[in-house]
Amino acid sequence: MLSRHADLYSIGEEEIEALEVGAAILGTGGGGNPYIGKLRALQVLREGRKMRVLPLQALPDDAKVVSVGGIGAPLISHERIKEGREGLRCIRALEERLDFKIDAIACEEIGGQNAMEPLIVAALADLPVVDCDGMGRAFPEMQMTTYSIYGHRSTPSAMCDLHGNVVIFDHAASELWHERLARACVIAQGGASSLASAPMPGVFVKRFAIPDSYSRAISLGRTVREAQRNNADAVEAICRFEQGQLVFTGKISDVRRELKGGFVAGEARIEGFDKHEGDVASIIIQNENLVFSRNGKTEVVVPDLIVILDIDTGEAITTELLRYGQRVSVLALPCHPLLRTPEALAVVGPAGFGLGHLNYLPLDDVNAPGAGPTEDAKQ
Amino acid sequence: MLSRHADLYSIGEEEIEALEVGAAILGTGGGGNPYIGKLRALQVLREGRKMRVLPLQALPDDAKVVSVGGIGAPLISHERIKEGREGLRCIRALEERLDFKIDAIACEEIGGQNAMEPLIVAALADLPVVDCDGMGRAFPEMQMTTYSIYGHRSTPSAMCDLHGNVVIFDHAASELWHERLARACVIAQGGASSLASAPMPGVFVKRFAIPDSYSRAISLGRTVREAQRNNADAVEAICRFEQGQLVFTGKISDVRRELKGGFVAGEARIEGFDKHEGDVASIIIQNENLVFSRNGKTEVVVPDLIVILDIDTGEAITTELLRYGQRVSVLALPCHPLLRTPEALAVVGPAGFGLGHLNYLPLDDVNAPGAGPTEDAKQ
Repeated sequence: MLSRHADLYSIGEEEIEALEVGAAILGTGGGGNPYIGKLRALQVLREGRKMRVLPLQALPDDAKVVSVGGIGAPLISHERIKEGREGLRCIRALEERLDFKIDAIACEEIGGQNAMEPLIVAALADLPVVDCDGMGRAFPEMQMTTYSIYGHRSTPSAMCDLHGNVVIFDHAASELWHERLARACVIAQGGASSLASAPMPGVFVKRFAIPDSYSRAISLGRTVREAQRNNADAVEAICRFEQGQLVFTGKISDVRRELKGGFVAGEARIEGFDKHEGDVASIIIQNENLVFSRNGKTEVVVPDLIVILDIDTGEAITTELLRYGQRVSVLALPCHPLLRTPEALAVVGPAGFGLGHLNYLPLDDVNAPGAGPTEDAKQ
Repeated sequence: MLSRHADLYSIGEEEIEALEVGAAILGTGGGGNPYIGKLRALQVLREGRKMRVLPLQALPDDAKVVSVGGIGAPLISHERIKEGREGLRCIRALEERLDFKIDAIACEEIGGQNAMEPLIVAALADLPVVDCDGMGRAFPEMQMTTYSIYGHRSTPSAMCDLHGNVVIFDHAASELWHERLARACVIAQGGASSLASAPMPGVFVKRFAIPDSYSRAISLGRTVREAQRNNADAVEAICRFEQGQLVFTGKISDVRRELKGGFVAGEARIEGFDKHEGDVASIIIQNENLVFSRNGKTEVVVPDLIVILDIDTGEAITTELLRYGQRVSVLALPCHPLLRTPEALAVVGPAGFGLGHLNYLPLDDVNAPGAGPTEDAKQ
């Protein structure tokens, strides 16, 4: 029984509070604000359920691991609260369809509220959560996981909503077809449901998952909280922890945002102040922050992380909470190397978002001397 | 083995040709033109497959009967031909999900191309088709069968498209939820797929299916063909066979038609000639012909059948083939009593189509002396 494994570590209320902060930052504006997920996670803990995380390398090769998460538009999941057991019903439907028991839960995306969902489902199912995820951040579509990119076929999968509907995507002609069909269903279900993908063997997860996602997000959250307590610069602490860079500071001057095909799509404009006085930045959004431009010139591109933070608290602002007048810092954080291979960039690089006219230039290279007008290069 | 049952009767090429004509008339404009389905059925027969129909009353009480049909917009199913085994894959997916074998195939709707699909699937699966259907005509939505109306829960169901995608609607919160989710998926799949519903016990089918649908549609088709051969009045022959009435003759003067949410919706206008000179008729369409009005006054309302026929040949014109200038006869045929109960009218009466301001008045009552301006009453 994996849930009795010696290497397991426990998640308590302090970890959930820190995870809320860390997951919001790694959400790069998307994945949904983890606040409501946090409340649900705390409720599950207070009911006496156990949340246990298993280090990725402790996972047995033959373990059957199922990733689970919310699917839909974050905006909707804030306005219409989950019934609570959607994810558990997904697991049960998948077990019934496949006629075997699942050994562990994995996270699809550590960014945003999908960081909470696997912990909640695993606690309800008395299973461990593996310390990993499929994105190392948030992305808007299901085929955008390292699981799918590196060859896992995510069907049969099970999708459940708060009405009690259970849909099994038994076979999809491709990962993109799975996304299309699930997206059509989630829109019909009101825009926010849960989905559990086909089981992966432990050996595959160890090789292709983004490692240590829960440890990282929790530590990142603690770093921010500690800076806040010490009146230190939280933004600077995040950059240090994530080896990222502060690329802009300014005031939100315009937010264009619409619900389109189940996604939040749009653009935010930021008028610079302090040392960015006179500059104008723009951020293209599709659930997440995808492209950062300064004075019309593209600087940071997905899959690197673009994070909008409240300039005072250092806490992340998700795309659906962006408002005129907010004073923000914009950070650029390098993505995991598993997202930078050619096969990954075909799915989660600019071309994967209909932005094929943009080239992906890794953040570290941008940051190299003479490579472009980044924060450091300008000074 | 039901497929060796003594009461079975065979369907050959002559029956398929007659069924094409009869099913098109019973389609009341919808259900798709059966022509392409006929070609597919003939192809299956020529490959040496057997098509066998089992009389409804010969069905054993404990037989497991699955209804199967096409789902989507008829217009699309004409432009994008099926791969051919979508329906068979639905049956197989359902058998795998439920872990038992299916005994017989039933028809969802005898009107239009869905009359052909069960024969094709049954021939490929070497199963009999029961002589019945769930509509006695065509309707645009899945919950509009006597199966659903009288208590059958149609999930788990399986839906397959020509790409190879297999979706199982494992549980739906209601029959309407099943329709909504399947509709969302079929639109994502390109607008024309196949769906097999949860098995029904034979005893249920015998009580709540519309009986003798295949015998009736084939005989109706033969009646038309015979009238054509004898230069007799095919329209008059149909009215006599179906105990219906000729309500209008005229020329199509306008067709408004659009694809909306996976349906063909619109209205046709007909300018009368001969004894209807000076009158204008209008027919409201949602895949099928729903409401017939004369000079602005409603006369025939769904679920009674409104059939538009070519005035010379007596063959049905489906809504997607209506064109300016066609010379047509409009018939009104009474629906089966199972569609006239209060529980049926709530689903397939005018209120089921967003036409709640209209009252359903059974055709026979309309036709009674003094009940309204029908064809006979006017003369």
